[in-house]
Amino acid sequence: MLSVVTLGACLQRAGNQVHFLLHSDYQHVKENGLIIESPKGNFTLPRVQAYQDARRMPASDVVIVTLKTKHNNLLSQILPFVLKDSGVVLVLQNGLGVEEQVEQIVGSERVIGGVCFICSHKVGPGHIRHLDYGAIAMAEYLPNYQTAGLTERMKQIAADFEAAEIEIQLSIDLLLIRWQKLVWNIPYNGLSVVLNATTEQLMADEEIRSLIEAIMGEVALVASTCHRQIEESLIQKMLSMTEKMKPYRTSMKIDYDNRQPLEIEAIIGNPLKVAAAAGVDLPRIRMLYQQLKFLDSLNRKERV
Amino acid sequence: MLSVVTLGACLQRAGNQVHFLLHSDYQHVKENGLIIESPKGNFTLPRVQAYQDARRMPASDVVIVTLKTKHNNLLSQILPFVLKDSGVVLVLQNGLGVEEQVEQIVGSERVIGGVCFICSHKVGPGHIRHLDYGAIAMAEYLPNYQTAGLTERMKQIAADFEAAEIEIQLSIDLLLIRWQKLVWNIPYNGLSVVLNATTEQLMADEEIRSLIEAIMGEVALVASTCHRQIEESLIQKMLSMTEKMKPYRTSMKIDYDNRQPLEIEAIIGNPLKVAAAAGVDLPRIRMLYQQLKFLDSLNRKERV
Repeated sequence: MLSVVTLGACLQRAGNQVHFLLHSDYQHVKENGLIIESPKGNFTLPRVQAYQDARRMPASDVVIVTLKTKHNNLLSQILPFVLKDSGVVLVLQNGLGVEEQVEQIVGSERVIGGVCFICSHKVGPGHIRHLDYGAIAMAEYLPNYQTAGLTERMKQIAADFEAAEIEIQLSIDLLLIRWQKLVWNIPYNGLSVVLNATTEQLMADEEIRSLIEAIMGEVALVASTCHRQIEESLIQKMLSMTEKMKPYRTSMKIDYDNRQPLEIEAIIGNPLKVAAAAGVDLPRIRMLYQQLKFLDSLNRKERV
Repeated sequence: MLSVVTLGACLQRAGNQVHFLLHSDYQHVKENGLIIESPKGNFTLPRVQAYQDARRMPASDVVIVTLKTKHNNLLSQILPFVLKDSGVVLVLQNGLGVEEQVEQIVGSERVIGGVCFICSHKVGPGHIRHLDYGAIAMAEYLPNYQTAGLTERMKQIAADFEAAEIEIQLSIDLLLIRWQKLVWNIPYNGLSVVLNATTEQLMADEEIRSLIEAIMGEVALVASTCHRQIEESLIQKMLSMTEKMKPYRTSMKIDYDNRQPLEIEAIIGNPLKVAAAAGVDLPRIRMLYQQLKFLDSLNRKERV
């Protein structure tokens, strides 16, 4: 998962005006700025425009949302204050159905969706570390995930991102890129929590490698009910990419270890609903969902 | 799982001559005897005939095997010394295919198989605690698990057990009672390890209750390929029995917590082989198997 902080930092370094809405790290970042470590080189931004309260922020042309989906109820108190009338929201959250929540607040014509194939995590307040670099894929959102054209505003955003050394791919099919990301997210996020393991440990075990492949096959199956084709070559590419990645603790595992609620519904529950509506059985993904709901519930009970 | 110690203790208290072959508890039991706690009343046996070495034991009419299946390679060095020519081995191990290993040592005509629905565990050396009482079911073993008659020797064993207040049911169909036990063993043993939970925690969660039921359905499906019918009423009975049971740590969970190898092959691997041979897919049981193999392997690596 990519933090908005990383993206914003890259954009600011490239000369863009960036405003950061922060929660727990606000005070630290306000005083100390940001530190970004990455394989492409580390950099620091001693001073950034940080905010705690959306109502004090100026309205922007582009608002990037990377909030965890479980906090999406907050968006209606944020987006109306920070988005220009002519602006657009770029939803870079995980899972399925996330644009629909943003659409209800700002209207479908002001939503672009996207997914990140970038591994980064926070190592301390205002301090982000990238493990591996990948791309962001994005596409215009239309109601019911209809395919859409490549618009001027997308191209502008892409140009700004590329100038900031953020690799970006433009797509006409938001639903397809969401399903492609789910091919990775469902097995690795889910199994890393259930089996208390890094991606490296999961891939080193033949039984689990074969289970991951079977789960990816179930994602391809449900995607096909939405008329989106996940090629077998994509599955093989994701397996070998993950094998070569540095050992990685998934975002769901980090949430679990921090006793935060897990993004089970956006990442696994919503795909299961799509499958159920199409009358398709996904026994492994359903079992993963059941196991995660159990572990999440117990994890947060023990916290009290 | 029932320990041979519990059974032997009940039989000795009722006046039978019992010889115990022990491993780690040998010295303690030799000196202090046994303590059995149970809902039917506690009792102690200050003196029992305990052995460490099968070659020093007298040959018996009935040899009860409750060894963990993963140690079955030891049986060829035990059974020939402790079984009378006219005697019989009662195999009370978990899982499928366990009689075949005993058959190779003593011949099929000297094997009776059985399963226990009794929860007991060791609380200290020579000290056993029962949580709930259930029955033992047993049947004659014939090659390929053909159905068999009720024999005189079974009735004699049953009479001795009943006199020792051990509830027993005689069956003509060993394979059926093995599948019936697997309806319980596969979901509860497996999920208790994967989810780090007691039977009570598993049953309190609606998602997991529904997963357990689905796994039981898969056991019924593979049993049907062996022409054995698991009634829906048995599944419902096991669910409600387990709900009413005192919170129970399964035998596989106890092994896992003690960093002992798990009985995955006998309980889950062998049923999966039966399913594969019949061309039947058991996605949930296969996923459970894959998860358990991963956890078992990591659990014992960390031990080193």
